[in-house]
Amino acid sequence: MIKRINGSIENIENLTFNGIKEGKNGLGIVVCKGSVAGVFTKNKIKAAPVKVTMDVVRNGEIEGLIVNSGNANAFTGDLGLENSKKMALLLAEKLEVDEKKIAVASTGVIGKQLDMSWISNRFEVVFKNLGNNRQKALAFAKSIMTTDKFVKECAFKVDDAIVAGIAKGAGMICPNMATMLAFIFTNAHFSSDELQLMLNKVVERTFNTTVVDGDTSTNDMVLLVSVGNKKVDSETFEKALNEVCFDLAKKIAKDGEGATKLIQVIVEGAKNDEDAFKAAKSIVSSLLVKTAIFGNDPNWGRIVAALGYSNAEVDENLTLAFKNEEKVVLVERGKVLGNEEKARKLLEKSNEVQILIDLHKGNGKGFAIGCDLSYDYVKINAEYTT
Amino acid sequence: MIKRINGSIENIENLTFNGIKEGKNGLGIVVCKGSVAGVFTKNKIKAAPVKVTMDVVRNGEIEGLIVNSGNANAFTGDLGLENSKKMALLLAEKLEVDEKKIAVASTGVIGKQLDMSWISNRFEVVFKNLGNNRQKALAFAKSIMTTDKFVKECAFKVDDAIVAGIAKGAGMICPNMATMLAFIFTNAHFSSDELQLMLNKVVERTFNTTVVDGDTSTNDMVLLVSVGNKKVDSETFEKALNEVCFDLAKKIAKDGEGATKLIQVIVEGAKNDEDAFKAAKSIVSSLLVKTAIFGNDPNWGRIVAALGYSNAEVDENLTLAFKNEEKVVLVERGKVLGNEEKARKLLEKSNEVQILIDLHKGNGKGFAIGCDLSYDYVKINAEYTT
Repeated sequence: MIKRINGSIENIENLTFNGIKEGKNGLGIVVCKGSVAGVFTKNKIKAAPVKVTMDVVRNGEIEGLIVNSGNANAFTGDLGLENSKKMALLLAEKLEVDEKKIAVASTGVIGKQLDMSWISNRFEVVFKNLGNNRQKALAFAKSIMTTDKFVKECAFKVDDAIVAGIAKGAGMICPNMATMLAFIFTNAHFSSDELQLMLNKVVERTFNTTVVDGDTSTNDMVLLVSVGNKKVDSETFEKALNEVCFDLAKKIAKDGEGATKLIQVIVEGAKNDEDAFKAAKSIVSSLLVKTAIFGNDPNWGRIVAALGYSNAEVDENLTLAFKNEEKVVLVERGKVLGNEEKARKLLEKSNEVQILIDLHKGNGKGFAIGCDLSYDYVKINAEYTT
Repeated sequence: MIKRINGSIENIENLTFNGIKEGKNGLGIVVCKGSVAGVFTKNKIKAAPVKVTMDVVRNGEIEGLIVNSGNANAFTGDLGLENSKKMALLLAEKLEVDEKKIAVASTGVIGKQLDMSWISNRFEVVFKNLGNNRQKALAFAKSIMTTDKFVKECAFKVDDAIVAGIAKGAGMICPNMATMLAFIFTNAHFSSDELQLMLNKVVERTFNTTVVDGDTSTNDMVLLVSVGNKKVDSETFEKALNEVCFDLAKKIAKDGEGATKLIQVIVEGAKNDEDAFKAAKSIVSSLLVKTAIFGNDPNWGRIVAALGYSNAEVDENLTLAFKNEEKVVLVERGKVLGNEEKARKLLEKSNEVQILIDLHKGNGKGFAIGCDLSYDYVKINAEYTT
């Protein structure tokens, strides 16, 4: 039985956490003794905290997590790595545990050294006030935000156990990089190997249809931590984990910088699943599609063009529709139906739209999640480091 | 001897041309008897005129060119193909030549049938006033424009001969599609096979570093037509052709929709040329880099991140500089020099910037051309079909 419940990580009794945000800088801590799995950026320039936390995940055991926002600690050389290790050490010393069991994450500007005096100073304040309640969960969630406009969190009950997660968004969803962090906790008991297997599968179907993919930032990280001993069978747990990750992925897309509309592209009838995924990704990444959706412009020709360069097997014999509460078919097996005005009204009515494609080539299915491209995206990113 | 000269195709005496633009619609004609080569979109959804003109290029002989703007005649099925052939026929009948020797090109909205009565009506007016002078060259250049803000043309003298070209821009340069058309004429004598060999090489080094690539529109087309009998050795001619194409490519980039700055990325020290090209393309395509440049923000961390996900072999031991009249080094073999304020001033000073990268991995060289991403890009593309 999987059921959404209110709040997020405060539903898991074995955790304590807290966070602080001051201007662009933030610091958050979660104390979480248990097993851990992780998925990391594929970017060849990896931030220092990614290197540190990859080692923690390799060992499979975790005691706590420390995250800062405002500075990515990426492209910071040996000193950066040293500083990441110092962040781990701050928490390890207080908890009296091995520093190799402390995960570290960072997000923010690339190429600047951390302000370690700010971090160690605020660390004391945050650590002193660790706890487990709604307010502390929000404090942690806010401490890791950068350009995010709202907190991204959720919790699901699965049998007797809980899975809950908190994330921060990527600057823009597809096709470009900007840090995405997600921290997921459960009181269901699994080994780190079991967690890793499930996390790999679920990330592929959720975050990787949205953001991560090959175009990842220097700092992307998804961690899954088991801190309890509740028994849940792994098949059921994986479903709950999928709910958590899909929920967070959609919230990230919805909060794409400057985004006014969530776009879901659902491709059916592709030659195979891989083709369907390619086609969906190509559409959701097209700047011309994204700007058209922002302008409530049912310019489906741009969708067709994005399909044409997606490398999926496509020809003009395709079906294309827009959907939210209602559904408007624009092209039916290659025939243009002239429903542009209906489609425009559909777009104007909602801040979510599904683009449905049937390629009539086979049984392949795939989807991708993204957002529109607005003036505010340009504004936010033209003025980021100033 | 290769030398830039004023104007464009009016320098070639064997051509006549003219064009008309009314609102979003335009029609242009060039009468050009000779041999022809072409490079076309790789998009799997090819517009009708692309199919027609590919056949002309396959035969290698051309008598004339007819182009319309405002409607791409793409995704228009059998009727669309019939209409493209009718456009060819209009010109073929007047010239009393085989319609299979008339090239056709279109640019504009996808998925709408051509207004053939407008086309045949305006065809009469344009054809009646064909000629060879500055004003007619401008009329043709303007007739093929869509969101272009300025005419893109150039001419070079090579020995005794002339190579001249007229182009229209893509909606946005990298990574997305929107039609690019370029028509290049010469009175130097070459067979269609010779033209094709040279055109393939030159397009790869010019337009394909800017726009075309895999992410092409349904309608992209570059034609090279030889209408004269001047003798030029092919090596020299290829250099002149490269000048023409590079000049037009830069003009297209500079006029990227809403662009305020031309960006040239020059990568050296890559493992090989392929890696250098990948790295340059990745930087010039990054939305975060493009918006930073728009905001005069020397956020070189985004450039490093784009290098990291480019699939080129890179590590932190790289050198990164901005250049226009002066040069500001931001990173020297991995060392961050703290020159951000100097770099900001450099960006503020000019509407062109070179991003210079040395990867210190080998002797590979490559470059890419693009433009920044501004509010106006969003505006233009959110309201295109309305």
